[in-house]
Amino acid sequence: MPLSKIYEPIQQDLAKVEDMMKSVSQADLSWLPKQLAHDLRDSGKLAELLTYSLKGGGKRIRPALTLLSGKSYNYNLDCLLPMATAVEIMHTATLVHDDAIDNSSVRRGRPTINKVWDDDKAILLGDYLFAKAGELVSTTQNLQVIKLLSQTLMTITSGELAQSFDAFNLEQTRQHYLHRIISKTASLFSLATESGAILSQAPGKLVKALKEYGYNLGIAFQLVDDIMDFIGTEEKIGKPIGSDLAQGTLTLPAMLLLERYPENNPVKELFQNRDRQKNIKLAIELVRSSSIIQECYQFASDYCAKACRNLNLLPDNASRQSLINLADYVIERKR
Amino acid sequence: MPLSKIYEPIQQDLAKVEDMMKSVSQADLSWLPKQLAHDLRDSGKLAELLTYSLKGGGKRIRPALTLLSGKSYNYNLDCLLPMATAVEIMHTATLVHDDAIDNSSVRRGRPTINKVWDDDKAILLGDYLFAKAGELVSTTQNLQVIKLLSQTLMTITSGELAQSFDAFNLEQTRQHYLHRIISKTASLFSLATESGAILSQAPGKLVKALKEYGYNLGIAFQLVDDIMDFIGTEEKIGKPIGSDLAQGTLTLPAMLLLERYPENNPVKELFQNRDRQKNIKLAIELVRSSSIIQECYQFASDYCAKACRNLNLLPDNASRQSLINLADYVIERKR
Repeated sequence: MPLSKIYEPIQQDLAKVEDMMKSVSQADLSWLPKQLAHDLRDSGKLAELLTYSLKGGGKRIRPALTLLSGKSYNYNLDCLLPMATAVEIMHTATLVHDDAIDNSSVRRGRPTINKVWDDDKAILLGDYLFAKAGELVSTTQNLQVIKLLSQTLMTITSGELAQSFDAFNLEQTRQHYLHRIISKTASLFSLATESGAILSQAPGKLVKALKEYGYNLGIAFQLVDDIMDFIGTEEKIGKPIGSDLAQGTLTLPAMLLLERYPENNPVKELFQNRDRQKNIKLAIELVRSSSIIQECYQFASDYCAKACRNLNLLPDNASRQSLINLADYVIERKR
Repeated sequence: MPLSKIYEPIQQDLAKVEDMMKSVSQADLSWLPKQLAHDLRDSGKLAELLTYSLKGGGKRIRPALTLLSGKSYNYNLDCLLPMATAVEIMHTATLVHDDAIDNSSVRRGRPTINKVWDDDKAILLGDYLFAKAGELVSTTQNLQVIKLLSQTLMTITSGELAQSFDAFNLEQTRQHYLHRIISKTASLFSLATESGAILSQAPGKLVKALKEYGYNLGIAFQLVDDIMDFIGTEEKIGKPIGSDLAQGTLTLPAMLLLERYPENNPVKELFQNRDRQKNIKLAIELVRSSSIIQECYQFASDYCAKACRNLNLLPDNASRQSLINLADYVIERKR
């Protein structure tokens, strides 16, 4: 099912999220004295950076999750709108910093901020976006989601740090991998759904159910992302394939490959800094010609099934159906 | 007057800020499942990075400002403590990112995070610290200071972006410079004082007075910092002198030098990428042997005097006297 169909129950409000993103791009600094705000905007070219990074053509899954979760109880757009926008902006900020860290040139088929401008601008733009997310969430006046946003960013950066310290390290367990993707990806999905539930005043059980749904969906999402890095095409995934291996990031397909071929393994070779290009190519070919991809998809499907089971408590309405369909979409999206 | 004397009215509580910084260093991720939190801390070496960056031996002027401002009305340590800590942590985060951006090797006489580890760790550590500041402020449950924190970070990054885009640009006015230092430095001083006043439930007039005091003190502080980059020693300022010129940052002393010697100016030469080392040395010598430093100190003194006038409304107690003495300290600190 195409995303446009899945998004139907919240279509109009998702368009409002898009409008809010556009207004963020105008770099409002209205709390400052007029001339100061003008000078900063003018000389900083901030609006240009914001526009470039926020229009990016993402699938807007995270804000959609917030809005759909909000439909589980007393839908309150005044709070859900800034929350959903904040979640997407925080996501954008992490991508901007990730691209600088990984020295990536292409994202979603377009040159990255660090490529068009430089790392310095990427660092500062990301910081601005984190702050903007914080400001937007403060307008909900809900202390619980305000704190959650900060904690989620701490979780994400802890996961990214773990990944950075573990780069080119072969001694990693599946649990390490799972914990890494929970913290760097699933935690934000979970923030999206949990905050939607909290802001619609849903009872604790529903909040918990939607939080768990977000976690499980996020794990599945990242598993599929990591699969795509082996079986996708640059055109489809918007960046070169094999990027994870090139960064020294051990994902599940690479782990399974290491388990199957403990000797003369191209992942081992390339992590030990031997003939990187050749070994990345070799690893991709080996994974593709094995049943590893099948196995990884099975993991992803299991998490999606779990996610759907988390929805049993929810009222049976169109939005719940969309959340179920979204779980299917995550598995099918690029297969 | 030494800082220890100035800090007397808040000495014990400033020690509690230090304790809170230490507990932040332990990388509490207690909202996560236990095993996940353990794995992230363990593999991410987060605590090590936090400890290194937070013990750094700063003068803790910003948290002191929050506590002293809180003494202007109903001193409420439960709120002031996390706020003061958050302000210092946000300050640390901006330094960590700045050092990565400027490729600096030394800060406060110690190797920088980007030097001991690398840029990637510096970016992620800074992000974690921003988030931690947000979490700490959320515990005050005061929506006004929560929003102020985010807006201040937006102001700071806008100023840093302006500085980054204006690097090696000779066409900058004094107003540009003033606006840059207001946004990158004075805004955080002002957050420190304003939030202290807000959290002590001070009436609007006092809040405004302390906010203005913070602005003016912050401007003076940065002016002196920019002077020190010309007349200091590496030992005193904890980093190489001439760093601003090396980064292409046009500060007031350099601007005045350009005004005085429009022809054959070493700043002009080095901004046009000619013989950088020689021209930095030449510029420093010229500034030192002129009355430019005197003139810059006059500007700084004027702002400090303004800051002190902002305090007229405050109750005449030991904390107000400390705020006055702090203004003197800012001018005298490294002269």
